[in-house]
Amino acid sequence: MKNEIKIFSPATVANVACGFDVLGFCLDSIGDEMVIRKIDKKGIYITKIEGFDLPFETELNVAGVSALAMYEAVKPECGFEIEIYKNIKPGSGIGSSAASAVGSVFGMNELLGRPYNKTELTQFAIKGEALASKCEHADNLAPAIFGGFTLVKSISPLEILEIPSPEDLYATIIHPQIEVKTSEARAILPKEVPLQDAISQWANFGSLIHGLHTSDYNVIQKSLHDVIVEPYRSQLIPYYKEVKEASLDHGALGAGISGSGPSIFTLSKGLENAKSVKDAMNKVYSETGITFEIHVTKINTEGIKIY
Amino acid sequence: MKNEIKIFSPATVANVACGFDVLGFCLDSIGDEMVIRKIDKKGIYITKIEGFDLPFETELNVAGVSALAMYEAVKPECGFEIEIYKNIKPGSGIGSSAASAVGSVFGMNELLGRPYNKTELTQFAIKGEALASKCEHADNLAPAIFGGFTLVKSISPLEILEIPSPEDLYATIIHPQIEVKTSEARAILPKEVPLQDAISQWANFGSLIHGLHTSDYNVIQKSLHDVIVEPYRSQLIPYYKEVKEASLDHGALGAGISGSGPSIFTLSKGLENAKSVKDAMNKVYSETGITFEIHVTKINTEGIKIY
Repeated sequence: MKNEIKIFSPATVANVACGFDVLGFCLDSIGDEMVIRKIDKKGIYITKIEGFDLPFETELNVAGVSALAMYEAVKPECGFEIEIYKNIKPGSGIGSSAASAVGSVFGMNELLGRPYNKTELTQFAIKGEALASKCEHADNLAPAIFGGFTLVKSISPLEILEIPSPEDLYATIIHPQIEVKTSEARAILPKEVPLQDAISQWANFGSLIHGLHTSDYNVIQKSLHDVIVEPYRSQLIPYYKEVKEASLDHGALGAGISGSGPSIFTLSKGLENAKSVKDAMNKVYSETGITFEIHVTKINTEGIKIY
Repeated sequence: MKNEIKIFSPATVANVACGFDVLGFCLDSIGDEMVIRKIDKKGIYITKIEGFDLPFETELNVAGVSALAMYEAVKPECGFEIEIYKNIKPGSGIGSSAASAVGSVFGMNELLGRPYNKTELTQFAIKGEALASKCEHADNLAPAIFGGFTLVKSISPLEILEIPSPEDLYATIIHPQIEVKTSEARAILPKEVPLQDAISQWANFGSLIHGLHTSDYNVIQKSLHDVIVEPYRSQLIPYYKEVKEASLDHGALGAGISGSGPSIFTLSKGLENAKSVKDAMNKVYSETGITFEIHVTKINTEGIKIY
């Protein structure tokens, strides 16, 4: 059995318009790299962090906390070193902390001979995610571990459903380099919502699940609406409306806030359209003076993997 | 082309726990019979009503109003007579008015050589349903016309999705012979609902759509929960809790209010279980002194049909 493993831990989009708090999908072209190494000395040690400034103390690091949760369950005779090569900017809204949280447990699981299944790995990773987001949720973790689209039906007990991903589905994601505090993004949401809006949301959500199952891009397009959260959170993202309108004008199936923002995602049928949406986004944001990045990516149906 | 047609217009269950206002399914063993006859004299005439006391005036009869909506669109050189042999008791909560509303337009469409598709027929039938329920909705109409499970994604424009029905899915429905006024059932609902409950509801609803697509009875079972409407409307149905508990104890996948009640539906894997649930319901209600009927039925994937 190997003593060292190098992994790719993908970025993810949570919420996906009508699927607030429960749906997510996995990206292909952006993710962190991590090296997990089995060592004789007991314990979890973060030995290298590149890309962004994150804490080395195991208990203060998302990857460390999820690793500890698993380590305490396994109680192995060995220890683990973790190297983190971070590409996903913390706070970008595309699952940066989730990638860290799943990376360590996925890697350890491989080195230990896979004692745990994917749902169990998600359960450990929730502990790391909670360090970053102050609450237990799995809508970025599940797609990072399972790949494709995932529906987190419940957190306690943890129930994750794998939803099929149409062959020709691509995402374009713009990350404006501004800070949206998760706490603010959460505080801005109402505690109660109109019943009629909730009905529209679950009509759209059920319809989206149906569209993904049937690879019906027309149904997917008609379902990608968020009448509950977008009206509030979009206020925190400059030029949200302009980006969304330009994307839809250029044939995107739909657009929405990625996680709690500030990233904005769109879905497209086909790579060509996803690239055309990128150009449209680029045009809007080039005139704003705000630094930004745009990712074009196939839906990653494999999820986290060994390099 | 025939000048007379005899049809079976099925009863339906709307809402289906987590799918309030959008989901419905079609029943096999209970429905109205109707005869539609092409005549030389222009106009729509209701010539016979058996089973229940309903108005003969076309404009005051649900079947008449939907027929008129279609008649005015077609402007044919002929007229139609409608005979209604009503088996579904009005106010039972299993789509009595919907069966009447779809029966006339389905029959006329057949006699005219099928100028309209199923969605267009639903559109006409909405006018009849609105006479009975004072608002335009299609969650009983759509399953009656399409069969199986249907998701009414939107009313305007009318968008209906056909959701697959697992082979071995049966329903047991108890109809306590009490009156629940639709107006009361509607007035009792809150205008606003907690966001967290709404999230649970769409998690369950998305999960139910996934379970129906994958014929995963375990997922279906875990999804059949209604945290939004049941807590309110179940108060209007005597012994609701007892019926639900007894059904679940006897292996039903789930239970809920059919439409706005008073009927209670359950879903089961297999006919044997559906019958066992019937016995359990029967035991509960036999001791109440309230008259009741119980139907055991396969999911009717065909919908309304010519006899």
